[in-house]
Amino acid sequence: MQKTRKQRLRTALAQINVIPGQPALNTAVMLKAIAAAKRKKAELIVFPEMAIPGYLIGDNWEREAFLRECEACGHKIRAAASGIAVIFGNVGLDWTRKNEDGRVRKYNALFIAENKKFIRPQKGTYDFIIKTLSPNYREFDESRYFYDLRKLALELKKEPEDLISPVRAGRLNLGCVICEDAWDRDYGFSPLKILTGQPLDIIINCSSSPFTLNKNIRRRKIFAEQCVRMRKPLIYVNNVGIQNNGKTVYAFDGSSCVFDAFGNCRPVCGRFKEEVAIIDISLAGSSFAEPIMESEEGIGIIDEALVFGLRAFLGQCHIKRVVVGISGGIDSAVTACLCRRVLSPGNILLVNMPGRFTSPTTIALARQTLKNLGCYYVEIPIEKSVRHTVAQIDRLEIRSPDGALRSRLRINTAILENIQARDRSARILAAVAAAFGGAFTCNANKAETTVGYSTMYGDLAGFLAPVGDLWKHEIYALAGYMNNEIFHREVIPAGCFSLTPSAELSAAQNVDKKMGDPLYYPYHDRLFASWIERWNRITPEEILDWHIAGKLESEIGYSGKIKDIFKSNRAFVADLERWWNQYCGLAIAKRIQAPPILAVHRRTFGFGHREAQLPVWYSGRYFKLKQQLLSRKGGVAAVH
Amino acid sequence: MQKTRKQRLRTALAQINVIPGQPALNTAVMLKAIAAAKRKKAELIVFPEMAIPGYLIGDNWEREAFLRECEACGHKIRAAASGIAVIFGNVGLDWTRKNEDGRVRKYNALFIAENKKFIRPQKGTYDFIIKTLSPNYREFDESRYFYDLRKLALELKKEPEDLISPVRAGRLNLGCVICEDAWDRDYGFSPLKILTGQPLDIIINCSSSPFTLNKNIRRRKIFAEQCVRMRKPLIYVNNVGIQNNGKTVYAFDGSSCVFDAFGNCRPVCGRFKEEVAIIDISLAGSSFAEPIMESEEGIGIIDEALVFGLRAFLGQCHIKRVVVGISGGIDSAVTACLCRRVLSPGNILLVNMPGRFTSPTTIALARQTLKNLGCYYVEIPIEKSVRHTVAQIDRLEIRSPDGALRSRLRINTAILENIQARDRSARILAAVAAAFGGAFTCNANKAETTVGYSTMYGDLAGFLAPVGDLWKHEIYALAGYMNNEIFHREVIPAGCFSLTPSAELSAAQNVDKKMGDPLYYPYHDRLFASWIERWNRITPEEILDWHIAGKLESEIGYSGKIKDIFKSNRAFVADLERWWNQYCGLAIAKRIQAPPILAVHRRTFGFGHREAQLPVWYSGRYFKLKQQLLSRKGGVAAVH
Repeated sequence: MQKTRKQRLRTALAQINVIPGQPALNTAVMLKAIAAAKRKKAELIVFPEMAIPGYLIGDNWEREAFLRECEACGHKIRAAASGIAVIFGNVGLDWTRKNEDGRVRKYNALFIAENKKFIRPQKGTYDFIIKTLSPNYREFDESRYFYDLRKLALELKKEPEDLISPVRAGRLNLGCVICEDAWDRDYGFSPLKILTGQPLDIIINCSSSPFTLNKNIRRRKIFAEQCVRMRKPLIYVNNVGIQNNGKTVYAFDGSSCVFDAFGNCRPVCGRFKEEVAIIDISLAGSSFAEPIMESEEGIGIIDEALVFGLRAFLGQCHIKRVVVGISGGIDSAVTACLCRRVLSPGNILLVNMPGRFTSPTTIALARQTLKNLGCYYVEIPIEKSVRHTVAQIDRLEIRSPDGALRSRLRINTAILENIQARDRSARILAAVAAAFGGAFTCNANKAETTVGYSTMYGDLAGFLAPVGDLWKHEIYALAGYMNNEIFHREVIPAGCFSLTPSAELSAAQNVDKKMGDPLYYPYHDRLFASWIERWNRITPEEILDWHIAGKLESEIGYSGKIKDIFKSNRAFVADLERWWNQYCGLAIAKRIQAPPILAVHRRTFGFGHREAQLPVWYSGRYFKLKQQLLSRKGGVAAVH
Repeated sequence: MQKTRKQRLRTALAQINVIPGQPALNTAVMLKAIAAAKRKKAELIVFPEMAIPGYLIGDNWEREAFLRECEACGHKIRAAASGIAVIFGNVGLDWTRKNEDGRVRKYNALFIAENKKFIRPQKGTYDFIIKTLSPNYREFDESRYFYDLRKLALELKKEPEDLISPVRAGRLNLGCVICEDAWDRDYGFSPLKILTGQPLDIIINCSSSPFTLNKNIRRRKIFAEQCVRMRKPLIYVNNVGIQNNGKTVYAFDGSSCVFDAFGNCRPVCGRFKEEVAIIDISLAGSSFAEPIMESEEGIGIIDEALVFGLRAFLGQCHIKRVVVGISGGIDSAVTACLCRRVLSPGNILLVNMPGRFTSPTTIALARQTLKNLGCYYVEIPIEKSVRHTVAQIDRLEIRSPDGALRSRLRINTAILENIQARDRSARILAAVAAAFGGAFTCNANKAETTVGYSTMYGDLAGFLAPVGDLWKHEIYALAGYMNNEIFHREVIPAGCFSLTPSAELSAAQNVDKKMGDPLYYPYHDRLFASWIERWNRITPEEILDWHIAGKLESEIGYSGKIKDIFKSNRAFVADLERWWNQYCGLAIAKRIQAPPILAVHRRTFGFGHREAQLPVWYSGRYFKLKQQLLSRKGGVAAVH
């Protein structure tokens, strides 16, 4: 018994739903979790990184009153740590020192409390562990707020190695790190390697890590390697909930788990589920009976993340009812289905807004979708209003008071398209949503958003773009998944899948004649993704390089042939420049005023993909390659 | 002659207009400047920080093709450095190493070229100087992109001191630093102090420093102290132009200058003016004949920055014509005047859009303003369209297809207000702007923007908010300045100054009855500023603290008395919570979709003031103070 007890560590993994910016609420949840863990005889309870303040809270770190409250909440947790060791993330404060911005010194810190006291790490200068590696990419801004351990070492005239050590809690030597500390590949410095030589029973990684497609697969690989190298088990605790940086809403999936000393992973807490789970961990290094094999993540997880994120966002914003403008196309159908997953039919209103160019085909599809979903539905035509707007403005005389200036305004086709789109969203949907007591969605997808194929204050408007981080092929995949795996019936009609994607804003966008968007999604999805999703982002220069080398398709992952899309190199280049100009030009102006997006991929538009409105740039080498390509005769034959 | 030559350094201060993201264009300008400086026998030419790539270019640093072009442009400048020493900012690349994000190693670097070669600093490991202090506050994101010298020292297992030294260029020992390197007060480390003990003839600070009100005053104080301490003259070169981070547009004022070894400052280049100026600097430490006294910055500089920024932004976005919705109020009048400063009357269209609640008073003021400015003008009423919208939606039956759900939409006063605002902007102004061949402004001020007192897709819409960083009292001051100092006549009618600020969207907002906005600007301007502009941002907790201590007025800089505004403590607290809830709540959702703002102050909404949509937070202590305050009887007598 004594022996078994010695080799086992009963631990509570407290995968709590952290409410960002609400220290008192989080602390109350944590106190309950501690009490429950004690009842279950856990020796240790582990909370996520920044469990008290939340992680993505913008510049609220600049409010000293907020920091004081976080500190006081930490003291409450400390007072509850008796009969159990408690590890939790909080902001670590040193009121006697300054950050480099002149504000109070703040650390991203882990506190270990036992016997109602904080335990100082063996080599520490504070009663907490300091995050060593500060991510400053994508949505992460840590150096903006937190002083890291390396700067502290410099200040103390020490080596960073001198400040990293295990924490002795009772019988245990704990190697505690915070999130990025374990993702050390690209850093010149590894806290886990420094811990390696020291007495250690177990590694603990407290994280606040937003969901990104395939991130868990990478994480488990990295953590498993570290367990094997260090021959130690590892506990990983992440929070659930949503946090955001304004422009982008991140779902936190939890997925807290335990690794044995052989790197075998055992999932402990569910995905996207608040849960305090108890597990007995072997300190002796024995393997789990059945190591869990990780499969590829796919559309099912995207669905989970979006449903979780949408529900949580509506809850946080106190939005109880949602209006979806439903066109008969696939994007709005998928958005409506997502809403249906988190709201009852009585809290959803689908609005179809036919205009002069709306086909009976799409109206029928919209009606069919509505019938399948069973929500409120209404049709509100725009034609009369659009005509009134045109009548008020087209040929309207404008003049200066002295009559020196005289002119007439003219409305052309492009202007008329945008008038229709704005009439639908800013005139009808906004008012209908208010009258319904709710908010309306933006149904834009990632391909459209990339090149600004949308109208400001029109289809780009809404309180949230639930599918704004999905490429068009993912929208189709999600639609299929909804029908097959979720609703188990054809909620989204087959016609939506085969419909030509179209805005239906002019005679040139006639779906019945297979005329629609100027985007050929199977190709453009992949082309645009190379500009955005790649870690080293691709520009037209590389696109031409690849095209000339005959490997553009394989580089961007397009399964067809470029020469089947474009009649000539000239047409290929014209298309490339058209969309690059849009992506780097007007689309940025549109994204600046676009709604928040639910994040799925590594680079979601918003604070994780920062952009400035700049003149469009092509490299000098691009122009040379272009000249080379266009001076050859013939079709899209590659120039070798 | 020999002696004079030895004591004098003829230098060109190349205050160029850096186009962000356009290395080839900037390089062409730089080559011309070098040629001009050589003709004028300058020994040295100094360019700004990041002169080749630009500074605020978002995540475009992630494009390797862009980095390669920056590097190649640097080589072109190097090749031109013969017969003159050239100092310029560029991205410093090390393709063999990685940044902590896994991308290629990038430094914010200064290159010193002479005899067609880059000169390696005496203690350097690269052929460039590395920025040591990386700002990560306000709009600055340097750790996101650049590896700093301290990280490099750690990687090389050296002390940072071992990597900082002067550069020997010809006869000169140059102490080169980059922008923030000289703003070392809050850093644990000072590159200038490390340079102090080493042989040094002159300090050179290359910056790319956005205009902020009063920043030059602070800069000159800091730099003067450093000159005195080091007993060396200093050259400061900053660029002009505009750069942005999407949400916020920054004007760069240049203001390049020279300090003598006694800290006396001599302005060399003008403000907001591209200029390559030649100056003979004494290395012997002699003082300028007439040291320049710096006066307080004020509304005149704000005017300069806004006019410069607006002109440059229009130019960059290729917007040649502007539409301003003109209400008769002060905000739109000032915005129209700003546009008039940068565009001819034939390129401005003022649109008044009367509705049911528009008073003859404001229409008359709008007409008067228009007459004074002499632009195009037109009146387009909204009433018919608003009625149509109400007729389409109010009492409209919505139902589910099976009839199980049935309801009717209702439009109330608040919804009707927003319908009017959206009708003006999204229906009329957007279409009119397109038909006029231009874009329309957003006329919001900073107080409204703070609390979201505006309608999304309504008065919050526009391509840019030129006065969005001005508090209401600054709008009035700017209006007065326009009349008195710029136009020298009453362009903005006296009636606009005395008019009750009002949205005129309901019968309760009747300006003729002195009924209007729920904001009392003289007080709310100051209250809101404490939440935003203070370095350590204020929350309701401190507001109550101050109020209880009887010093709220002096703390926030309100010249009146709180007790003259609010009948009771209860009313005071209700007002405080109303606006705090708005500021931290719906106003954030609105700002996420708001247009870019021209920056004037230290904290402009946007990337310099990052925010997340979160549940509204009050500290526990706030509630205690509130209880304490409200439990006392009587009026707004402070509780001592």
